[in-house]
Amino acid sequence: MERKPAAAAALVVVVVVLAAALFSVGEAAHPRRCVTSTYRRKHQASDDMPMDADVFAVPPGRNAPQQVHITLGDQTGTAMLVSWVTVEAEGNSTVLYGRAADRLDLAAEGTTTRYTFYNYTSGFIHHCTLTGLDHGTRYYYAMGFGDTVRTFWFTTPPPPGPGAPLRLGLIGDLGQTPDSNSTLTHYEQHPGDAVLFVGDLSYADKHPLHDNNRWDTWGRFSERSVAYQPWIWTAGNHEIDYAPEIGETVAFKPFSHRYPTPYRASDSSEPYWYSVKMGPAHIIVLSSYSAFGKYTPQWKWLEQELKRVDRETTPWLFISAHVPWYNSNNFHFMEGEPTRVQFEQMAVDARVDIVFAGHVHAYERSHRYSNIKYNITDGKCTPVADRRAPVYIVIGDGGNIEGLADELTWPQPAYSAFREYSYGHAVLDIKNHTHAHYAWYRNHDGNKVTADTTWFTNRYHMPNHDDSVYSNTAYV
Amino acid sequence: MERKPAAAAALVVVVVVLAAALFSVGEAAHPRRCVTSTYRRKHQASDDMPMDADVFAVPPGRNAPQQVHITLGDQTGTAMLVSWVTVEAEGNSTVLYGRAADRLDLAAEGTTTRYTFYNYTSGFIHHCTLTGLDHGTRYYYAMGFGDTVRTFWFTTPPPPGPGAPLRLGLIGDLGQTPDSNSTLTHYEQHPGDAVLFVGDLSYADKHPLHDNNRWDTWGRFSERSVAYQPWIWTAGNHEIDYAPEIGETVAFKPFSHRYPTPYRASDSSEPYWYSVKMGPAHIIVLSSYSAFGKYTPQWKWLEQELKRVDRETTPWLFISAHVPWYNSNNFHFMEGEPTRVQFEQMAVDARVDIVFAGHVHAYERSHRYSNIKYNITDGKCTPVADRRAPVYIVIGDGGNIEGLADELTWPQPAYSAFREYSYGHAVLDIKNHTHAHYAWYRNHDGNKVTADTTWFTNRYHMPNHDDSVYSNTAYV
Repeated sequence: MERKPAAAAALVVVVVVLAAALFSVGEAAHPRRCVTSTYRRKHQASDDMPMDADVFAVPPGRNAPQQVHITLGDQTGTAMLVSWVTVEAEGNSTVLYGRAADRLDLAAEGTTTRYTFYNYTSGFIHHCTLTGLDHGTRYYYAMGFGDTVRTFWFTTPPPPGPGAPLRLGLIGDLGQTPDSNSTLTHYEQHPGDAVLFVGDLSYADKHPLHDNNRWDTWGRFSERSVAYQPWIWTAGNHEIDYAPEIGETVAFKPFSHRYPTPYRASDSSEPYWYSVKMGPAHIIVLSSYSAFGKYTPQWKWLEQELKRVDRETTPWLFISAHVPWYNSNNFHFMEGEPTRVQFEQMAVDARVDIVFAGHVHAYERSHRYSNIKYNITDGKCTPVADRRAPVYIVIGDGGNIEGLADELTWPQPAYSAFREYSYGHAVLDIKNHTHAHYAWYRNHDGNKVTADTTWFTNRYHMPNHDDSVYSNTAYV
Repeated sequence: MERKPAAAAALVVVVVVLAAALFSVGEAAHPRRCVTSTYRRKHQASDDMPMDADVFAVPPGRNAPQQVHITLGDQTGTAMLVSWVTVEAEGNSTVLYGRAADRLDLAAEGTTTRYTFYNYTSGFIHHCTLTGLDHGTRYYYAMGFGDTVRTFWFTTPPPPGPGAPLRLGLIGDLGQTPDSNSTLTHYEQHPGDAVLFVGDLSYADKHPLHDNNRWDTWGRFSERSVAYQPWIWTAGNHEIDYAPEIGETVAFKPFSHRYPTPYRASDSSEPYWYSVKMGPAHIIVLSSYSAFGKYTPQWKWLEQELKRVDRETTPWLFISAHVPWYNSNNFHFMEGEPTRVQFEQMAVDARVDIVFAGHVHAYERSHRYSNIKYNITDGKCTPVADRRAPVYIVIGDGGNIEGLADELTWPQPAYSAFREYSYGHAVLDIKNHTHAHYAWYRNHDGNKVTADTTWFTNRYHMPNHDDSVYSNTAYV
């Protein structure tokens, strides 16, 4: 699947060596490979699936709960936030839950909200937080009346601690095309404990008047996964829904009404930046589309949050932000520069393990590189190999109405380890406090075929280890 | 007052020439001077003036209107937004106005608001928009009851058009120390038609619990100017007042209640980014502390706003943003990088004449330089002389409780034309559609002594003219 070292690749190697010599990176220059996959996909966009597609089916029964989805209800998963929509009448916001499907002996009361968007009025959107949960435990939950009662289940994450394994699904820019459906179907073959979703859910804004019925169809489409495991939400540009031409100027209006986050549990003041801790992982979600300048609430929160990270308890530290800080696709190329410039030094100082992003509709994984020496006059603006730095993973390849980002920059930059424009998703398997296995699955392969795999070693426990040697190779 | 070309300056020239050769800027390399003033000031900070200082005096009479201030009430000044505070009781929000002090034959009805901030409750804050005004006309206005009626006046700006001259005061980071008072007093000796205020008003947040009584004292202190001419407000970091430690997490709460802006008139959706047009000038105010990434409301607004600019009508195009994009002081050095990276290309493409900023408590004026070729791997990150580019003026030297920014970076960067850490203000005199005279006044000199002067030629009508030749020289 890999291009053999040819002229372009050789040139890249020369550039890397030259850059290493010029900038005295002080690291043993082992030959980091920069691979551009030769796998070629159709790159026309697919239309969204028709409104009457099976995957969008409304559950049977009058006013049955639909679009059921869950996310963590506190920072560590001893609470779960359950959301759903009823269309015909308000109904109630009660959730019954318990440890067996036939013994839902607990009850929680939620709240209901609605919103309008130009000529659209939402259904009744219910949010109910189930509290007092034990870690690592299967719970069943149900909502609805009489014969419309619907029952689901989830397993709470393990308690924060370095020992427990954790399996994270990684999906972004999903949308609701046949490709989106393929991505979700592939993920369902080896589901994780949770999904870290890097932004851009429904792409409703690509329809006339930002047709918010497409938020409803997306909610029904994704329910088959999101009702059974928490998805951790990151706000993408398609969540902004800023449409002054039709009088809709409140950013994130549909998204914030439909997809709440447990932001208060991590002392955040807005739903778009927050953190959760699941087993060995501390996950920080940032908003590329909120204020992030120094002194702003998000920036101040991040500064404090990084001090609160305890790598002895949660050795793995991740950031999720919609716009990538490193990327080498012509689509959206350099769009992440303002956020990179603002946050990269903080991420390197904090020894963040991986920064996940979406936005670019392709897949890319970086080597550990940094670009933090620039002072505007010193010319030091070329990324250099840096073992303190995060790996950057762009996983915006969920498969949406906009299609693939099929124009790469050439030559492949030295920081780029692997890139391919296919639809897919990834899974990160944290094995212990030092090692995590990572695999990217492209949709066009069999469910268990990995197209890019590697091992990551932990930046806290093995800060100087060069894990790029595992790139695309078998570790065990 | 200027340092003679010495070793450091010579080095800078060498660097400039070398850079020009390396990056092929394609401009005649005339020797741009980079001057660091040798004028040395006390740089300890001054305390805020005591609460009972004369400049903070409450006007006589029970519940008399205080903290009167005006800003444009629409985009061009046919409306004026009058604000004031009553403390003891709500009173009304009526303003009487007219063309003579003894004939206030028009009336406008406003609104009242209040806010709390931790243990502080504001007075009754009145906002009243006077509409239907003629351009270039003196109006008198009054509010209050009986013997507490207070009368003020203002002159509306000339109508948008290339012919009328316009004189803009430039003040930033003012605060309420004796230095602040000195700056305002100096400005009052040669007042402009309006003040473009580049952010950081009261510094109330430097007091325990962000003591909002310091917003009140600042309002009374500044009234002597702001009640008589519109100040155009830019949001600075000291307007954020984000204080989660005392439960105050709504950004801009005191500022937004006290200092409204005519943002809707320029199709903006929030008060922190907007535009006004006064005579020959189109002034765009940006918020360094709101979301500004691509696709955000502010970014989308700016993209549209730049298309609406008509340089035939308003040949002069300015941007005001609190954080400087170019600066060479160690204080806050590089803090403006995310905004520069986001906006510089747009500003250069739009041929913005000048970008004004504050934040750094010193004075600095740049040559026309740009830094927009960088693509993360090409190494092209050194600013180059560029006649299409704006001049950058940092005027954060109003004189506040934090003191001067007295640590410069060395060598002085090639983009820096003049820099000095003294308190002061500047005045921009637009003479016609092609030429504007500019002068910076330092507080320690006589009122009419200029410490840095130059002429700017218009980037629309004279796009290729090298106006750096006027730098610090007499033009007439």
